[in-house]
Amino acid sequence: MLQKKRASERDLFTLVEDFFANSFSTGNELITEAVRRMLAAGGKRLRPRFTLLSAEAMGARATDHLPLAAYMELIHVATLIHDDVVDQAETRRGVNATAIDFGNRISVLAGDYLFAWIFKNVTAGYPHPVPNILSSTLADITDGEVLQLRALGDLNLRLSAYVEVATKKTARLFAASCECGGIMGGGDAIVVKAVHDFGLYYGIAFQMQDDLLDMTGDEIALGKPVGNDLREKKMTIPVILALDGADRKFRGDLERFYAEDDETRERIAGVVREIGRHGGFVKTKVAIAEYIERAKMSLAPLGNVAARAEFVAIADALLKS
Amino acid sequence: MLQKKRASERDLFTLVEDFFANSFSTGNELITEAVRRMLAAGGKRLRPRFTLLSAEAMGARATDHLPLAAYMELIHVATLIHDDVVDQAETRRGVNATAIDFGNRISVLAGDYLFAWIFKNVTAGYPHPVPNILSSTLADITDGEVLQLRALGDLNLRLSAYVEVATKKTARLFAASCECGGIMGGGDAIVVKAVHDFGLYYGIAFQMQDDLLDMTGDEIALGKPVGNDLREKKMTIPVILALDGADRKFRGDLERFYAEDDETRERIAGVVREIGRHGGFVKTKVAIAEYIERAKMSLAPLGNVAARAEFVAIADALLKS
Repeated sequence: MLQKKRASERDLFTLVEDFFANSFSTGNELITEAVRRMLAAGGKRLRPRFTLLSAEAMGARATDHLPLAAYMELIHVATLIHDDVVDQAETRRGVNATAIDFGNRISVLAGDYLFAWIFKNVTAGYPHPVPNILSSTLADITDGEVLQLRALGDLNLRLSAYVEVATKKTARLFAASCECGGIMGGGDAIVVKAVHDFGLYYGIAFQMQDDLLDMTGDEIALGKPVGNDLREKKMTIPVILALDGADRKFRGDLERFYAEDDETRERIAGVVREIGRHGGFVKTKVAIAEYIERAKMSLAPLGNVAARAEFVAIADALLKS
Repeated sequence: MLQKKRASERDLFTLVEDFFANSFSTGNELITEAVRRMLAAGGKRLRPRFTLLSAEAMGARATDHLPLAAYMELIHVATLIHDDVVDQAETRRGVNATAIDFGNRISVLAGDYLFAWIFKNVTAGYPHPVPNILSSTLADITDGEVLQLRALGDLNLRLSAYVEVATKKTARLFAASCECGGIMGGGDAIVVKAVHDFGLYYGIAFQMQDDLLDMTGDEIALGKPVGNDLREKKMTIPVILALDGADRKFRGDLERFYAEDDETRERIAGVVREIGRHGGFVKTKVAIAEYIERAKMSLAPLGNVAARAEFVAIADALLKS
């Protein structure tokens, strides 16, 4: 009967969408509008669903934790709005919606306002350590993005350094979404750690999958050209794993690509093929499967609650995306 | 003897500078460096001095509240770093240090990291309502800046709308600096409100004075060309007060200036002269003096503590700047 009392996965998505459609509004019209546009661009709402599922895993009701879940998505949205801000030197690389429609200034202010508005609400309505978890998470996200920028084109980047960046810029927010949902759902330290760790490992796998799809995905589904990370000289996991144990010719070829400015479709397609030929894709899939396995194993302390099966289904779905 | 136990005004400045020089470091090297550069560019450190003075006004020791004082300056610094982010369309208007040296991307990330790092520390180390005051203040600052952008070139902007913008974008942080210092210094509600109100009224006067100096100040002291606000089509207090009761010719001339794109030195110098001739400067000085008077009167509940005299000295100094 437990199964009947709780919302299904599809229902959680709808709950979140309805909440944004009917209950979301900040004190600033223009910024509310910018956020709505960003939300309308789509998204699986994984972070808020993780918050709601984590609360449910503790025996709480999802509907009681919608604002908290929404803040998790909005932190993500605010970082996306700031990602849209374009360097003058980089405009040729194509610009994104918010910055084009509203300008860099408004994009910066909209993101700042959103962060501040979230923290204002969270510090007013949630007990320690929730506000601290959210601000620490945002510090990690930005720290991770700076580390990533500094590692652009660094072919000697180690796997451990990559995992640190992926953890900070992506996984921490998944972990925090679970942790805060677990805390507010009334879970004890052991089960809260269980959902936190699920989010953390899932998040690392999520970033690796994102890296992989950038090279092997469908352009239409991606909404951007294949090989975009290479174009930006990012060091992603398929590159790092393809380089591991590779011959000097391949390394030399990659070094030239990262040093030069030849970013034609053909050149990038060639580099992607070589990364695949050197095992970059297969090894990345293995790494993703390992993190997904760790994520699922983390859930053991939850016992047989229905939310656990749903977490597992979401984790398994990543392997098939 | 009370006088001897507490630091003098000059000492508070030195205390803050020493704290930044010796005790300030974030978890991210590049961002610490960007902040240090911004701090090295100068500043009177009014916000942290207000925090320390407010704590002293409650009988506490300034040296016990240096980190809190530093956060107030750092919120200001983070907003300055974000102000440096340049719109593509506006690069011709000249760009500022951080964005040039580090690029828009790093500027955005540095500001975000700084906000998050401050909130992380404040939520970990300070009781309610301090974290909420800081995040509400940041929401107000950004809201105020958006309102200001939307009011560019709006010659019908009312004085009350101007005061709302000035309050949000400038005065709230002065008020919060005082309020948080007062709270952490152990003051009761009435004296905390006294220093809060001092900060609020002082902050409005400060913004008005900033507007006035933009037209009447010395280019070298300003570090930017006279009439910069006019160049950016901002509606500042001398313009609003000069328009009040002005003849149709003057209004028509201003309308043309705000609608056209003629921003030569000569044209701007001519507009500045006309604003002065229509009483814009004199009326602004009167408004500033009124807010300074209100600020000083707010301090009555403090009685005769030494910090009060110093607040008054700082307030009076604004009138002579």
